[in-house]
Amino acid sequence: MNFTINRTAFISQLNNVLRAISSKTTIPILTGLKMVVDTDRIVLTGSNSDITIESVIDANNEDYGLTVKEAGAIVLPARFFSEIVKKLPDKQVTIEVTNGFQAEITSGTAKFQINGQDASNFPHLPEIESDNTITLATDVLKEVIRQTVIAVSKQESRPILAGVHFTLKDGLLTAVATDSHRLAQRKVALENVDNSISFDIIIPGKSLDELSGMMSDDSEDVKVQVSENQVLFIFGNTHFYSRLLEGNYPETSQLIPTTSDTTVEVEAGTFLSSIDRASLLSHESRNDVVKLTIQPANQRVKISSDSPDIGTVEEEVATTALEGQDLEISFNPNYMKDALRSFGQSTIRISFTSALRPFTLVPTEDTENFVHLITPVRTF
Amino acid sequence: MNFTINRTAFISQLNNVLRAISSKTTIPILTGLKMVVDTDRIVLTGSNSDITIESVIDANNEDYGLTVKEAGAIVLPARFFSEIVKKLPDKQVTIEVTNGFQAEITSGTAKFQINGQDASNFPHLPEIESDNTITLATDVLKEVIRQTVIAVSKQESRPILAGVHFTLKDGLLTAVATDSHRLAQRKVALENVDNSISFDIIIPGKSLDELSGMMSDDSEDVKVQVSENQVLFIFGNTHFYSRLLEGNYPETSQLIPTTSDTTVEVEAGTFLSSIDRASLLSHESRNDVVKLTIQPANQRVKISSDSPDIGTVEEEVATTALEGQDLEISFNPNYMKDALRSFGQSTIRISFTSALRPFTLVPTEDTENFVHLITPVRTF
Repeated sequence: MNFTINRTAFISQLNNVLRAISSKTTIPILTGLKMVVDTDRIVLTGSNSDITIESVIDANNEDYGLTVKEAGAIVLPARFFSEIVKKLPDKQVTIEVTNGFQAEITSGTAKFQINGQDASNFPHLPEIESDNTITLATDVLKEVIRQTVIAVSKQESRPILAGVHFTLKDGLLTAVATDSHRLAQRKVALENVDNSISFDIIIPGKSLDELSGMMSDDSEDVKVQVSENQVLFIFGNTHFYSRLLEGNYPETSQLIPTTSDTTVEVEAGTFLSSIDRASLLSHESRNDVVKLTIQPANQRVKISSDSPDIGTVEEEVATTALEGQDLEISFNPNYMKDALRSFGQSTIRISFTSALRPFTLVPTEDTENFVHLITPVRTF
Repeated sequence: MNFTINRTAFISQLNNVLRAISSKTTIPILTGLKMVVDTDRIVLTGSNSDITIESVIDANNEDYGLTVKEAGAIVLPARFFSEIVKKLPDKQVTIEVTNGFQAEITSGTAKFQINGQDASNFPHLPEIESDNTITLATDVLKEVIRQTVIAVSKQESRPILAGVHFTLKDGLLTAVATDSHRLAQRKVALENVDNSISFDIIIPGKSLDELSGMMSDDSEDVKVQVSENQVLFIFGNTHFYSRLLEGNYPETSQLIPTTSDTTVEVEAGTFLSSIDRASLLSHESRNDVVKLTIQPANQRVKISSDSPDIGTVEEEVATTALEGQDLEISFNPNYMKDALRSFGQSTIRISFTSALRPFTLVPTEDTENFVHLITPVRTF
């Protein structure tokens, strides 16, 4: 193995693959980065037991300035190798496997000799058939992830809730996540999808966080291929594999109330600031709740909270619409802040039934495809 | 007490004073921020047992938009108060002491009631006579601090070494710090200083770090006033007090060698990068050393290091001058990196006597006023 490559371009691909590599792993070779060098391309692979990321560096892409003198393969210690490449002095770097599994890394007058491992000992990638393939825009997928992954459970008591439940039926993609205190559901009608394709899978929230961080914010295509226990996302020159969570996701469709007795419309950003202020005090009290006092007859909504040690806060909330019954309701401000952030700068409608029943938040401009549900806290 | 102020300008002053306030303190009132409001100004004070910072907000400075309705004083919980002020909705904030030691903070429609404490219980500031006053430029003082504070000891075994030793004699300010493995010494000839003024004090490194972070990078004046156990720095609208370390600083002037057998001149920045690369491997070996092989006859300097687990590194070093005896010398790369960073982008001369004797680094453009000394590591 012997190749020379533009260092900066190589680093960007290393960084992608490094996302999958953990220094804490029970399988020692997975602390390594696999490099497979062919005459016309290099494939970098990093993996932990949940995620595998593959990055293809094509010799025809001039940005890489790739010259392959000799094909070959090796596994190098990922963290060291990337730190070394990042700190090398020259614009280019040459990597050569000298004797056995030792790699020589040369750039300018600096020369490293690094102990590697046999690439054939690296775990093989799952094979995924391409029959079950859908295509959507990366920015749409990122939005779906952003809006649902916040409701994924951080508790280990119910592992199935640590994932987002994705279903595809009749061209409609539905993503749902809940930690049993809140729920987020997003629907997207996909174009150009064969109605014979359907799936029902649970993708770990952590995988989605990593995936989201790697995808660009534009409308380039991402292909999603589903197998029984793996999902593969293909975008740019990257293959992103995630294992799926096994088990049945709880039925959630009946949890979302369809009627309401009190509705409030607010600007998500402004309301977020108010909740954020009130939470300064609620965080210091034992039960960490913020109270909303809604009086449609007086056209008045008030946020309040208190901490016996520190003091009290109250604030009038500006609304764009307000109707229904009077209501006092308390909730965890962190759940509300997460939800409001997922709406960005839109106007939202919050629909309440009673002080003890879950309430929903939807954007007023599209009330059908995205809904966030929060369970209130009993304070009496 | 009742005043209204521009919130952004107020926050910048709060941030200054907060630097002195720790949430971990054995004196509970020191978790608070003292506000003393007069008709024409507000004085904010924060303190821990080592540092006290006072910030004066002058009603005549229009940036603050300060309107005082009623004078008074109070101590408010510093962390909460500043978080609240930072998150308030309006451009202005009004702070009023209502009943007892309770403060009402109002901005837009948000209103907080915060429990405070009696300002008369806040510890009094030390009084410092202004006889022993010197004046220098903030950028010079910052440079002196930056160049010496890196050599301050982090070990608690010899508390006196946790400070920088400042002496003033005949208009010459000398700052020295050493942790017994390395030493940094900087001299500044002060202009317009009365030769009758002299001092010999040890200022804690932590105080200097905080002070340095607060001072601007321009040539505005800072006044330094010294008393028996306190030093006061006055700049802008800020008074910064630090306690002094008690005891005698070790005699250091004889530690710096005056002769050398091998000298190397290098660009500090380039050499830093080389050391940084070599330290990637040295950090992984038990003794963490980098070796320099100097061969003036061949006009060759080589850095090398190795780690049994990971591999080896070697690199030719570009020099601008090189003379004297051949030498192999090993040292801790962290000490060298700290030293090189303190030189910025200048060319430096490194002067060696032997493999076991301390060596010195000086900038070639001013070899008299700044010297850094490092003790090598015995590897045989």
